[in-house]
Amino acid sequence: MTVANDILEGNPRFGIPRQTVSPGDLVRAVEGTLAEFLSGQTTALDDVDPALGRFARTTRDLVLAGGKRLRPTFAYWGWRGVVGPHEPVEPVLPALSALELMHTFALVHDDVMDDSATRRGGPTAHRIFAAQHSNAGRLGDPDHFGTTSAILVGDLCLVWADQLLARSALSTTTHFAVRSCYDRMRIEAVAGQYLDVLGETEPSAWSVERALLVARHKTASYTVQRPLQFGLALAGTVDIDVAAVDEAYNTYGIAVGEAFQLCDDLLGVFGDPVVTGKPAGDDLRTGKPTALLMLARQLATPAQRAELDPDPAGAVNPADGSGGSISSADLARRTEVIVETGAVAQVEALIRRRVAEGIEALAGAPIHDDARAALTELAVTSTDRPA
Amino acid sequence: MTVANDILEGNPRFGIPRQTVSPGDLVRAVEGTLAEFLSGQTTALDDVDPALGRFARTTRDLVLAGGKRLRPTFAYWGWRGVVGPHEPVEPVLPALSALELMHTFALVHDDVMDDSATRRGGPTAHRIFAAQHSNAGRLGDPDHFGTTSAILVGDLCLVWADQLLARSALSTTTHFAVRSCYDRMRIEAVAGQYLDVLGETEPSAWSVERALLVARHKTASYTVQRPLQFGLALAGTVDIDVAAVDEAYNTYGIAVGEAFQLCDDLLGVFGDPVVTGKPAGDDLRTGKPTALLMLARQLATPAQRAELDPDPAGAVNPADGSGGSISSADLARRTEVIVETGAVAQVEALIRRRVAEGIEALAGAPIHDDARAALTELAVTSTDRPA
Repeated sequence: MTVANDILEGNPRFGIPRQTVSPGDLVRAVEGTLAEFLSGQTTALDDVDPALGRFARTTRDLVLAGGKRLRPTFAYWGWRGVVGPHEPVEPVLPALSALELMHTFALVHDDVMDDSATRRGGPTAHRIFAAQHSNAGRLGDPDHFGTTSAILVGDLCLVWADQLLARSALSTTTHFAVRSCYDRMRIEAVAGQYLDVLGETEPSAWSVERALLVARHKTASYTVQRPLQFGLALAGTVDIDVAAVDEAYNTYGIAVGEAFQLCDDLLGVFGDPVVTGKPAGDDLRTGKPTALLMLARQLATPAQRAELDPDPAGAVNPADGSGGSISSADLARRTEVIVETGAVAQVEALIRRRVAEGIEALAGAPIHDDARAALTELAVTSTDRPA
Repeated sequence: MTVANDILEGNPRFGIPRQTVSPGDLVRAVEGTLAEFLSGQTTALDDVDPALGRFARTTRDLVLAGGKRLRPTFAYWGWRGVVGPHEPVEPVLPALSALELMHTFALVHDDVMDDSATRRGGPTAHRIFAAQHSNAGRLGDPDHFGTTSAILVGDLCLVWADQLLARSALSTTTHFAVRSCYDRMRIEAVAGQYLDVLGETEPSAWSVERALLVARHKTASYTVQRPLQFGLALAGTVDIDVAAVDEAYNTYGIAVGEAFQLCDDLLGVFGDPVVTGKPAGDDLRTGKPTALLMLARQLATPAQRAELDPDPAGAVNPADGSGGSISSADLARRTEVIVETGAVAQVEALIRRRVAEGIEALAGAPIHDDARAALTELAVTSTDRPA
């Protein structure tokens, strides 16, 4: 909190132009903003009923449980690139932080849909609430109570995000432009998630193109492209070529966002569980039709394809989402086949190409140099996660 | 649409002061606004992917499937009471209609939580999507696909509500006041629903007071009180005693909203399935701890209580939410016992008292007479549903 306080309350009263914050400072400032906001909200609900207080505190803990805060970070640099290094960050901190509340909404609802057990190193929302209520009653099924509570946790976070967004100190025109971008982003996140779920329901009808459409909507739009444009909108009326910046952010956002999702595809097969927080080979177990797996199927010889396509007997059990009876040896062999098809090499090349395209789009954009440098670095670091 | 068009495009171009609309006209104007908005949204998603178009159209159909449109109606009269009979309704129609999108969000998520099969005479959202996908795959379990899709339908409606609200022609100050009221209403709806679900999970720990707290938050706030205050906020700066109106709407809203929920409790036991759209004695089957049932338990003699408390062997099956093995004869007997305890008479008296309190609060309020008359009538009609 000390660093966040420095940012929040330090220089401006002396009129000293502040420096661009470091990534760590930004994360702390966002988390400080969230903590302060959530403290007021949980107290208000606690005053209504102690059970609501517990519900609100569990929700708050999920929001503050960590994470890379990528969306506020991209939005921050999207904004900083336009306003330059001296503009104080306080007026836009609530808006940047609201993106993180919206992200918790998306994660909590996604985890219900995927029946994921862990998130950010702890149990997921529905598992937390299921564990809180193992007693009987109409909804005495703990899993059902967990699902129900997690739906409400997500709903609450989405409303809280609106309330926090409303606390930003923005002109009216700016406020409406920001909200319009935010609404588009939320629609795309819902649409992308629906397509993602649909793909898992009909994997045999899926394709590389469809998987990339999901990546485009679910990840690129929601993680990079719209947050950058959200930052641009936050800047309000500025004396630059807004259309050129918008175009650059758009190209960068789609390219880097897609690369980010392709990286996630690789991690879903090759990732270290310690780093990813998911079981090794999770996407292979679940049969998730990622671009990587669709490409492997497309490139596979008939013999390879026979090894790739899940044995119905070993498929995931739809009742509990468990990994079915796929053995470790089968998983290891399937992982090898994916490499042998050449899909991994193609995806790695595609990631490098998309990152390069993103960086190139920024090169000629009329934005401030510190933001260009930061976004260039982010394009690399966010797509170069240790596997 | 003709009447809606008359309201939307009729008089104002000739500068003729319009009359207060009739209830039927208002419902048609709201539904016309929704239909036009949803048409644009579904087309936009259809352009991205045909599967998204189908998803959006199913969502649209759920919104337009009917319903009493009570929340826009209360908001309309809350607004009309302050602005008087001559103010054109067009600028606020998007905001009034947004409440109905928010209501669809709440209904769809509630139906998932309760695993309800029907709503407004048709299958619920999760049942519709479950029926659409009976094929295999990771999420091949149709029920799971139904739940997942319905969560996303609700999420989509909540975002659409924000987009529609933003289309209202309001001053900046008014817009922020309206949003602030809207946010409070949404938080209360989520909080009330959480308490409701919690009550069903631990019915033995529930009480009349707790049931009334749920009624206060889940129904009174969300159906009557906040919509009225939302209407007041929509009126913007007006030359009346706003505090007195706010106080009157508050008292009326809480009283009539509570009466409305108590009516619903009676319908949950005595309601005709044809009218309620739910099985007869649904609350008894499910053991929902309503104020009526909590009161019956409190008033019961030990012998009556033994007949009231569900036999564990006959309890609801938590796995599928079905009515367990409670026989029709048992249900009929339990219904009789509730009457014998005197709980029904007390609840009916409470409804009459709360309706009277609500009407009385309006009597002295500085609002226009047509709105006073309409709200007085609504207090009676909304709590006098055919059983």
